[in-house]
Amino acid sequence: MNKNTLKTYRQKYEQELLESIIPFWTKYSPDYQYGGYFNCLDQDGTIYDTTKHIWLQGRQVWVFSKFYREIEANPQWLEIARLGADFLRNYAIRDDGRVYFSVTSQGKPIYLQRKIFSECFYIMALAEFSRASEQPHLLEEAKRELAKVWEWAYDWTKVGRPNYSGQISAQSLAVPMILLNLISEVAGEETQAYQREISECIERLQLHVHSDTKTVYELVTPQGDLIGSSEGRLLNPGHAIEAGWFLQHWAQHFQDQALSETATNMIRWSFERGWDSEYGGIYYFLDAEGYSPTPLEWFMKLWWVHCEALYGHLLNFSLTGEKSDWDAFVQVDTYTFQRFRDPQFGEWFGYLNRNGEVTHRFKGGPYKGCFHVPRSLWLCWRLLETLENAQNTTSK
Amino acid sequence: MNKNTLKTYRQKYEQELLESIIPFWTKYSPDYQYGGYFNCLDQDGTIYDTTKHIWLQGRQVWVFSKFYREIEANPQWLEIARLGADFLRNYAIRDDGRVYFSVTSQGKPIYLQRKIFSECFYIMALAEFSRASEQPHLLEEAKRELAKVWEWAYDWTKVGRPNYSGQISAQSLAVPMILLNLISEVAGEETQAYQREISECIERLQLHVHSDTKTVYELVTPQGDLIGSSEGRLLNPGHAIEAGWFLQHWAQHFQDQALSETATNMIRWSFERGWDSEYGGIYYFLDAEGYSPTPLEWFMKLWWVHCEALYGHLLNFSLTGEKSDWDAFVQVDTYTFQRFRDPQFGEWFGYLNRNGEVTHRFKGGPYKGCFHVPRSLWLCWRLLETLENAQNTTSK
Repeated sequence: MNKNTLKTYRQKYEQELLESIIPFWTKYSPDYQYGGYFNCLDQDGTIYDTTKHIWLQGRQVWVFSKFYREIEANPQWLEIARLGADFLRNYAIRDDGRVYFSVTSQGKPIYLQRKIFSECFYIMALAEFSRASEQPHLLEEAKRELAKVWEWAYDWTKVGRPNYSGQISAQSLAVPMILLNLISEVAGEETQAYQREISECIERLQLHVHSDTKTVYELVTPQGDLIGSSEGRLLNPGHAIEAGWFLQHWAQHFQDQALSETATNMIRWSFERGWDSEYGGIYYFLDAEGYSPTPLEWFMKLWWVHCEALYGHLLNFSLTGEKSDWDAFVQVDTYTFQRFRDPQFGEWFGYLNRNGEVTHRFKGGPYKGCFHVPRSLWLCWRLLETLENAQNTTSK
Repeated sequence: MNKNTLKTYRQKYEQELLESIIPFWTKYSPDYQYGGYFNCLDQDGTIYDTTKHIWLQGRQVWVFSKFYREIEANPQWLEIARLGADFLRNYAIRDDGRVYFSVTSQGKPIYLQRKIFSECFYIMALAEFSRASEQPHLLEEAKRELAKVWEWAYDWTKVGRPNYSGQISAQSLAVPMILLNLISEVAGEETQAYQREISECIERLQLHVHSDTKTVYELVTPQGDLIGSSEGRLLNPGHAIEAGWFLQHWAQHFQDQALSETATNMIRWSFERGWDSEYGGIYYFLDAEGYSPTPLEWFMKLWWVHCEALYGHLLNFSLTGEKSDWDAFVQVDTYTFQRFRDPQFGEWFGYLNRNGEVTHRFKGGPYKGCFHVPRSLWLCWRLLETLENAQNTTSK
């Protein structure tokens, strides 16, 4: 790739992150009165709902902690991370280790899901904040919580979801995928202690990848077999792409070429199948056999899907050097920056109609916060920089 | 209204019901092997998922029972109703009176909601089938189940939904509304036994109607006050219109002019606010203060919303004689028959993009079955006939 091209992209990602995304959340989200963050923010940062959604509180702690360590030791960033971490530890977690899904602005519990994801983002927050704030006991807390989540992960009766005799025993891609991500967050460089868990997650994750049809299924049996229902046929290309780059990081860690190829393919296949050839953008859901997916929003174009695809394709390109991977990156980049970006108030819109029109004005909502955009911009920026430097070396 | 116009519309509704809707469900939905109905049917009737969703099983029993009594004593219709009623009684209900949300094709339970709506449609089915099949003991069963639902209706901790200290005490329009409808189904002409319940429901329902701003809120406090959150600002025009005509039926029953005006207004206001002036059709959700609603599908156009509006406006016109009510009916009729109808395979599509394009090919899904279309067509047909006959009398 041409060095100037790489530089232009690198600068764009760096600038977007530092001049549009971070300032938006820094300015509008912190709740200096009660702690934590306002995450329901309108286009211009106006708070339209004061509920604090724990997925987003946890993720924002992670972002500000990570950037404090990786981009700049900006004391304001550490303070913002601390605001969220303290709030989480004070109000989000219960004595039994369960973590609420949402609480009031003052921290009173509103809702507890019968799932494990609030717990996952809590762990992610604590692990990274522990390093940023140099408080090792918080990492120990994160590890203890991870042990609990590990216990619960494949048996949700343990988090209150009853089992009924007509239910098909199924495994959701989300679970091995997020656990893999959490282990890398918690373990850092010390992956030895989690060898067994990492192997199990990688094995389970691969059950979702069906090479014969180049398909990544969201739900399969615990043996990896297909489930012949709408749920069993459901594809979530953004999720599969995200799982792909999580897996690729582990493949690189273990220098496992076969695993790396699987990861590359997960991203390529999901993009090829998920791209809307008529209007552009990647669909939210598809049905593997071409029926209409049952979720009403299947045809919409979501910001996080495109964030995952940006980094996924760039990562592929960095490993394969193939033009088709670079082209896929550029294709997603062009669509994403044209459609999701808000040059007026900063941050990105989250939701587009099939034809690419913005459908939801807000920048933050119950499921959109300070996470996918900054994580993707930062990962891409860093990787573009690496590629650029490699070019420098080559041209010298 | 011109007599020929009324006749043309009446014929259209009658024909659509008898030649397109009923044949579709009669042909594709009955499961003569295990009982009940397949409700996940693709555009051409192909079964794409064998899960049996109990809301839809109950509603279809109601439709075939009702039409057997009201349209034609067709033995096939009674058999289809029986197929569903037996399935419901054998597999959907538990000993404690809770009713599953979904079961397998053979009746094994898959999912139980922590809500009361499966129970409601179970009651509706049994009450009407009891009359169609002349089995009074089934009406007694329905009454006993209604007594349980009445106990649970305003305290969902009784159906397993925990209360948390940060939750705002709130009342959902769905509850008094569906109870009002159930009482009329169960009581029939004998409303005396339910006087207290009817009064309470009507009172509670009116808490959602805020005349000062001409707004019908989906969620209010038990005192009828507004709740300043996304949920509290949420408007669901189709729901408000449906509640309007439920209320109007009771207003007519009690000959209560003030209540009748409230009901008329609920329909008019919701239509005025809910109509998409740019692309046509009625939005699924809106935010009372103009923020973006948080549900992803807020901008979509749903079949059932338009079904409710067809009958709501026609009912208004039949009572007020005002041209604006007739025009609203025609406006919704034109949009609905152009966009939702499927002249090729019969039945209607359920879901459109904001611009009116079909987004989901199927005719039946987890929330769409044999109910809103036939109920609306039948109610409109019957009312158009009444208006037509009144014209005959007038012109004599």
